[in-house]
Amino acid sequence: MSILPVAKLPELPPDNSMLYRKFGREVANYFSGSPLNRVSFLRTDHKFLGAAFTHPSARFLLVDNLAPLVHDTKPPRLAWSTRAEIAPVIASNPFEKTEEEVIRSYNSDLEPQPIVLFLGLDEKDTFSSAVGVETRQTETESAFSFNSFSGSPYFAIDVTPRGNGAIAAKARALVKASTAKGLLFYGNARSMNLSAPEAAVYGQARGLFDWNARNPFCAGCGQPTLSVNAGMKRTCPPTDLAGVESNGVPKDRRPCETRKGVSNLSFPRTDPTVIMATVSADGTKVLLGRSKRFPKHWYSTLAGFLEPGESVEEAVRREVWEESGVTVGRVVIHSSQPWPFPANLMIGAVGQALPGKGEDIFLGHDPELEDAKWFTMDEVRRALQYETAGIGDPVREGYKEGDLRLPPATAIANQLISSVVEGFHELTQSKI
Amino acid sequence: MSILPVAKLPELPPDNSMLYRKFGREVANYFSGSPLNRVSFLRTDHKFLGAAFTHPSARFLLVDNLAPLVHDTKPPRLAWSTRAEIAPVIASNPFEKTEEEVIRSYNSDLEPQPIVLFLGLDEKDTFSSAVGVETRQTETESAFSFNSFSGSPYFAIDVTPRGNGAIAAKARALVKASTAKGLLFYGNARSMNLSAPEAAVYGQARGLFDWNARNPFCAGCGQPTLSVNAGMKRTCPPTDLAGVESNGVPKDRRPCETRKGVSNLSFPRTDPTVIMATVSADGTKVLLGRSKRFPKHWYSTLAGFLEPGESVEEAVRREVWEESGVTVGRVVIHSSQPWPFPANLMIGAVGQALPGKGEDIFLGHDPELEDAKWFTMDEVRRALQYETAGIGDPVREGYKEGDLRLPPATAIANQLISSVVEGFHELTQSKI
Repeated sequence: MSILPVAKLPELPPDNSMLYRKFGREVANYFSGSPLNRVSFLRTDHKFLGAAFTHPSARFLLVDNLAPLVHDTKPPRLAWSTRAEIAPVIASNPFEKTEEEVIRSYNSDLEPQPIVLFLGLDEKDTFSSAVGVETRQTETESAFSFNSFSGSPYFAIDVTPRGNGAIAAKARALVKASTAKGLLFYGNARSMNLSAPEAAVYGQARGLFDWNARNPFCAGCGQPTLSVNAGMKRTCPPTDLAGVESNGVPKDRRPCETRKGVSNLSFPRTDPTVIMATVSADGTKVLLGRSKRFPKHWYSTLAGFLEPGESVEEAVRREVWEESGVTVGRVVIHSSQPWPFPANLMIGAVGQALPGKGEDIFLGHDPELEDAKWFTMDEVRRALQYETAGIGDPVREGYKEGDLRLPPATAIANQLISSVVEGFHELTQSKI
Repeated sequence: MSILPVAKLPELPPDNSMLYRKFGREVANYFSGSPLNRVSFLRTDHKFLGAAFTHPSARFLLVDNLAPLVHDTKPPRLAWSTRAEIAPVIASNPFEKTEEEVIRSYNSDLEPQPIVLFLGLDEKDTFSSAVGVETRQTETESAFSFNSFSGSPYFAIDVTPRGNGAIAAKARALVKASTAKGLLFYGNARSMNLSAPEAAVYGQARGLFDWNARNPFCAGCGQPTLSVNAGMKRTCPPTDLAGVESNGVPKDRRPCETRKGVSNLSFPRTDPTVIMATVSADGTKVLLGRSKRFPKHWYSTLAGFLEPGESVEEAVRREVWEESGVTVGRVVIHSSQPWPFPANLMIGAVGQALPGKGEDIFLGHDPELEDAKWFTMDEVRRALQYETAGIGDPVREGYKEGDLRLPPATAIANQLISSVVEGFHELTQSKI
């Protein structure tokens, strides 16, 4: 099994660091841990992007309808294309003009170009060697460098065919040619059997392509927007060349608030979500719930979206009370997980119920759960042994029908449950 | 001084809870700690909302251009209006029809009604008594209750006059009448001198009014949207009565992806932001930076937006490296703070630099900071004594020109800095 249930940190802190000795090893959840350096401050620099795009070591992940191109292996591995292989959809360097020039030449009548998303630089070949990508074609080929930055550039390209234009036709042809080679667009990436570094890189691409696709219009003014910053921004262009004769002066568009200063509407949205293991007041039990769509006997931690004006800790208390009736006191944040379905940041926490009536379960506030129950640490410990990779996977050998089932190690829910079973919440014993 | 620098929790966990004994007291930051129960699952229930709105104990916060109506005191106190006082802008119960009926009668030609935002129920008069609001007009008046829920209902109303219609004229008149009574719309709420529970409730209202105002159009299809769920959702109505004769059939609008299932675009956006105190590898120093717009000698923790595909811990490492060149190993999340300017969730963390070259400061990656520096714990401890309430406030007595200055206790930056000075990161001494 090549699944890495928990992502590897690219740069592990020394085990004798003070924070390590006080709080233990950092939990790096699945979908985190990309070894690429995003050099985010260079995304507006078309000189950098163009040099990276045209360098022979650049590699491209093709994504069709959010499904990544993969090798048809078990488990699947992401397939990385060279520039020659993507040429049928993107023949020339899309970063030739400056970003300002691209915005000035915006024409809403033209079919949008496929988004070329800059994922980052693989500075020390960490990613390439982990996932078996050969970015040097000859031994004498020099590595990519720009100012003080170096490493193989990684990109993703959205080849989803949209509409019936010439660009969509080319995208459709490339999708077909890729699968004809024996590769496939893997529509089941949510089942989480990519290796950890691949999952992190794919998660970044999925999140950004989905955000671009969901937001073709400006929420501030209703006019169409244009993807810039190598996929990390959608801008509301001030002018439009649609219907203007060539070499003519572009027409002004309606005014828009997002053009004044920096607007969050122009940048990708990430929805903070709280997910929590709640322990009983005496620390011997953990509260889990199940929704109707879960398989039989399957329970998980409670979760919900954080609302405006709430801290993480407050959102945890509100969600637990709304869904289960239990009143939580102290909340400690445990770890976090990017969750690109479509755009969540899972913030994992451990909470402790108030004693007595605080532990009473009542499902009638918000009828979201089918059931919620207190489980003993022993029941949970046993169930962790039978964890499977995905919600639909067959049960492991030895599982007794009727026993509790839990989410896989790739889910932060599992990490939270494991941590309370291991005593995350227990009193620090002072043994002076 | 009636400033509460750190918010009070409505329901404090017992000090002998396991999580308390292991991790210490929960840090509840300013803008968190609302004592109101949002009963979020009742926001679609117009029977509940209408009963709450029309109950004599209901109170309303008027907000004009994001500025709350306050009593002209030092510090200011939020002014709460009765239903009779808001009648000039909202004469009848806005929740008379069901939400479905409201959506069906959408007419884009009509001037939008002021948003009536449901803030929550004050279940045990916690809020009313903390901020001196008398919600019972007579002794015999019964408290509001609905099913198993009870408490005085709190709302906020956006009375910003927009355009020149009849509703804007009424709003303008009410704004004028309110200030004529000696109250004022407090445009300086960012200076954070409201009491902690008032700040939490105002923060909720500010965040939601701002989100509604920034998003009049649907990012999925470009058509205008309608505020529903008592201010917590903007829906893209499927039909429009504009131009249709009375009693005519509404016209279908263009199709929209957000109408299929649940779309995050319909719900308020909150931008996760990381903010971190970085300690040196040996734990004796803390890394702080300053931007050009800070007053002289003022430094703070570094901060930045989390990006799609990142965990909190990764975003901390990326931002510290991009802004200061320092390489961070272990990251521990500390606490969180809602920050309604306009829609941030500040996730506070403590990180530890890798030893040696990892601590070298280099400002050339992303030239966002004017300076970044390692300060000794002693320098920082001294500076915490001179903290002032706001960035523009005069320096406290005893401050020596040239010494470090730091953000006020209402900022999570201050809480993070204080916690490392108090040894948050230090080795747990094992004294067996």
